[in-house]
This record gives sequence, structure tokens and C-alpha cells, in this order.
Amino acid sequence: MISISLIGFGNIGKQLFKAFNKKEGVTVKQVYSPSLKPQKKGKTSFINVIENLQKSTIFIIAISDDEIGSFSEKIPFENELVVHTAGSVSMKALASKNRRGVFYPLQTFSEGSKIKWKEIPVCVEAENEKDLELLMRLGYLLTKKVISLSSEKRLQLHLGAVWVNNFSNHLFHLAEDFLNDAQLDFDLLKPLIKETVNKIKKSSPSKVQTGPAKRNDQKTMEAHLELLNNPKHKEIYKLLSESIQQKF
Amino acid sequence: MISISLIGFGNIGKQLFKAFNKKEGVTVKQVYSPSLKPQKKGKTSFINVIENLQKSTIFIIAISDDEIGSFSEKIPFENELVVHTAGSVSMKALASKNRRGVFYPLQTFSEGSKIKWKEIPVCVEAENEKDLELLMRLGYLLTKKVISLSSEKRLQLHLGAVWVNNFSNHLFHLAEDFLNDAQLDFDLLKPLIKETVNKIKKSSPSKVQTGPAKRNDQKTMEAHLELLNNPKHKEIYKLLSESIQQKF
Repeated sequence: MISISLIGFGNIGKQLFKAFNKKEGVTVKQVYSPSLKPQKKGKTSFINVIENLQKSTIFIIAISDDEIGSFSEKIPFENELVVHTAGSVSMKALASKNRRGVFYPLQTFSEGSKIKWKEIPVCVEAENEKDLELLMRLGYLLTKKVISLSSEKRLQLHLGAVWVNNFSNHLFHLAEDFLNDAQLDFDLLKPLIKETVNKIKKSSPSKVQTGPAKRNDQKTMEAHLELLNNPKHKEIYKLLSESIQQKF
Repeated sequence: MISISLIGFGNIGKQLFKAFNKKEGVTVKQVYSPSLKPQKKGKTSFINVIENLQKSTIFIIAISDDEIGSFSEKIPFENELVVHTAGSVSMKALASKNRRGVFYPLQTFSEGSKIKWKEIPVCVEAENEKDLELLMRLGYLLTKKVISLSSEKRLQLHLGAVWVNNFSNHLFHLAEDFLNDAQLDFDLLKPLIKETVNKIKKSSPSKVQTGPAKRNDQKTMEAHLELLNNPKHKEIYKLLSESIQQKF
């Protein structure tokens, strides 16, 4: 039986708790967060004082990237397995008094969204083989895709995630604002967004690029630029169009 | 019975042909394209000489944006209903000798992809009420979402489409290249891409933005920028991050 102490109860902490709670072979023994009301629910104790942390097989720190390092110092044990869940934080950011590792689920977690864990890649890293094996075992409880990645590789993957998730979502946001201003319904674009993603299920994005920049349609690009009032948005439009043209 | 002459047999021409061919109340009488082998298939004559065009209820021009204007002059009739299918081309680009209109399906069409027409918005425009009604009727044969839009509004919508489709796909492309160079599998990002789109099914993109730029995590942004070698990609990263920060 793997026992888990979960430190942090934000989006990712909650999702991990929900997911592990349903699995055989693993118990979430404690959940720590300063804002929690101390109570026992099922097999889990919710605590808000870090000194009340008990030993378990693994301590999972799921808090803001910036606080991982300093907070890991506060874990009142030594030589235990302590991992964080961040894409861009080095394993070495964790306090060296414990055996360090990473358990990074590559997904965007929002309050209330239903996560299909089976498809989500979990990237693991550890200082020694035995811990790595344990993290892999833990990963495979949730998903069929567990990979061992160094901190350096994980950062690269995280950068890819920023391009496809954070930046794409921002483009959706810009489009939404623009259409709202034009009194057009953003929902009109949703089937197109759906198909944009459908297309790359089986094909490479490089093969399905379309649009005025791809076909070097200067007239349309100029007409579009004239519609944009915000200079930064104009700049983004130009830069992305140039970047598309650089590829083709 | 609405009879259609389809001019152009590229991605969109083929998709329209396939879609109308299955419907009651409409026949594709002729399909013209210079590269077609003249033949009759079912109710449709395929022709490659524009002078062989016969009268029909509606002529749909589905060729490159740039050629719509000049090509519409070549239609050997007057006072017929002639429409184009482009998002960014004004209705007035069509030769004025015919009754002009637009039939713009807001979707990205690629060779071989299966189109779920029912969800795709079709934007129509015409110079007179009767033609507009006909175009709406034609649209509703394919989809439940038909809207009447001026050329100006259609161009705005088309700009929105460029943000969400062309530019997002380019971000996917950049991420793919970057991961390939780092010997990481782009497929790892696909569940994340799927969830990025899932999230905005019911929520606004403005509400689900996450990432280093949103939380002003300078350290991570700097680490990411160091990984990018191409100056244009660095610039895109910076500009999109700044634009996200401008929103929050």
C-alpha cells in the first residue's frame, strides 16, 4: 500500500486527491493546506499545521512554483521521498534533506473540470532508481502514459505546453474580445476551434496550416490589420503571420 | 428544386459538392474546373470550359480569393444569382452584371477531412431579399446555423477565424518543431490541446487562462526564453506573454 501526504490543495492538489482516492493500492493519508479545517474524512486527515504531518510513502507538494523550494524545507522529516508537481521547477529546487523527485501531470487543471486521467502524460523524475520505480507505479495508477524525464527535458516540454495551451487560449481570448466589440457571437468560432484540434489528431500541424499568411495573401492581411485598433494586437498579427511565412 | 453550378473544385468546392449531393431539394447541375475531365456522373456534369456553363438557380464560385472578381466576369450570363464562398472578400468584388451574394461556411476545409456540416455556421449575404432568402434556405439544408452578415461583419468574423484557427495551428506547429528538436514527442501535448478546447466549450477563454504570464512568473518566463533559439520565436513568446499580462 502506497500512502500519500498531499501538501497543497489547489486545483492540482484537489484533482490528485480525487483521482488517488478512487484507486486501489494507494491511500491519501493526509492533506495539508493552511486554509483547511482539520477533520478526518474517510481514510484522509485534513490538517492545517505542517508539524502535524506524519510519515508516509511519499510527500507530494502541489503548491505555487515559487514556494516549492522554501516550503520543502519545512517538512519535518529527513530522507523521505518528497516530490513536486510543477513543469518548470527543477527537482533540485527541493530541499536536499529528503529524497527528491517530480510527479508532473501534463495537463491544465481548473476548478470543477473533469479530468480524463487515462490520457494524461505523467512525467516522473527521481534521484534514485527505487524512487523512480515507485513514482512510475503511482503514475500508472492514474494513466497509461508515464515517462521518465530529466528536469531539463521537463522544462522543454513545459515550454511546449505554454505554446499550445496558454498562448492558444490567449488567442481565443483576443478573438472573443474582438468579436464582442464587433457585436459578433464568439460561439460562431467554436466549431472551427474544434476542427482546428481535430485536424492535428492524425496529422501534423505543419501539414494543415491554412490562411492568408500561408498563401501570402497581402490584401487580406492588410484588411485584417486595419480592423485591429490595439497596437499590440496588430504586432501579434504581423509577427505570427511572418512566422508562418518563415515556415512555408 | 434549387439547381447549383459549382465553379471551382478545390477543398471547399469538393466539400460543398459532397454535401449538396446528399440533400433533397437541390441538385448540383454542373461543376466547372479547368482541370476536370468532362463527364457526367449522376445528375452532375463536370466541365472544363466555362462557355459550357448552363443556367441554374445559383452559381457558387469557390476559387482563390484573388481570382473571384475577375473570374466572375467570365460567367456567360447576366442577372443571374452569383455568389462566392470567401470570408474576407466583399460581395461587391463580384461582377455587377449578375445578382451578387455570398455563401461563406465558417470552417477550415482540408483534403479528406470529414465535415460535420450541422454545426458549421454559414454566413450569407445578398443584394436583394429574395436572393437572401434562397441562400438561407440553401444554408439550412446543410446546417442549423445560418446567419445573414454584411461584407464588413464577415471580414471581422474572418479575422476572428484567423486568430483561433490559423494562428493557433501555427503555435501548435512551433511547439511541434521545438519538441522535435528536443527529441520529445509532440503527441505528449495532444491531451493538453484537447483540454484547452474542452475548457472553452462552456467557459470563456478569459476565465480559463493559466500559465507563467498570467501569474507573472518571471523566473519561468526567463527560463523558457533561454530555451528558444529563433529570435522571432523569442519575440512571439514575449509579445504573447505581455499581451496576456495586459489582460490581467
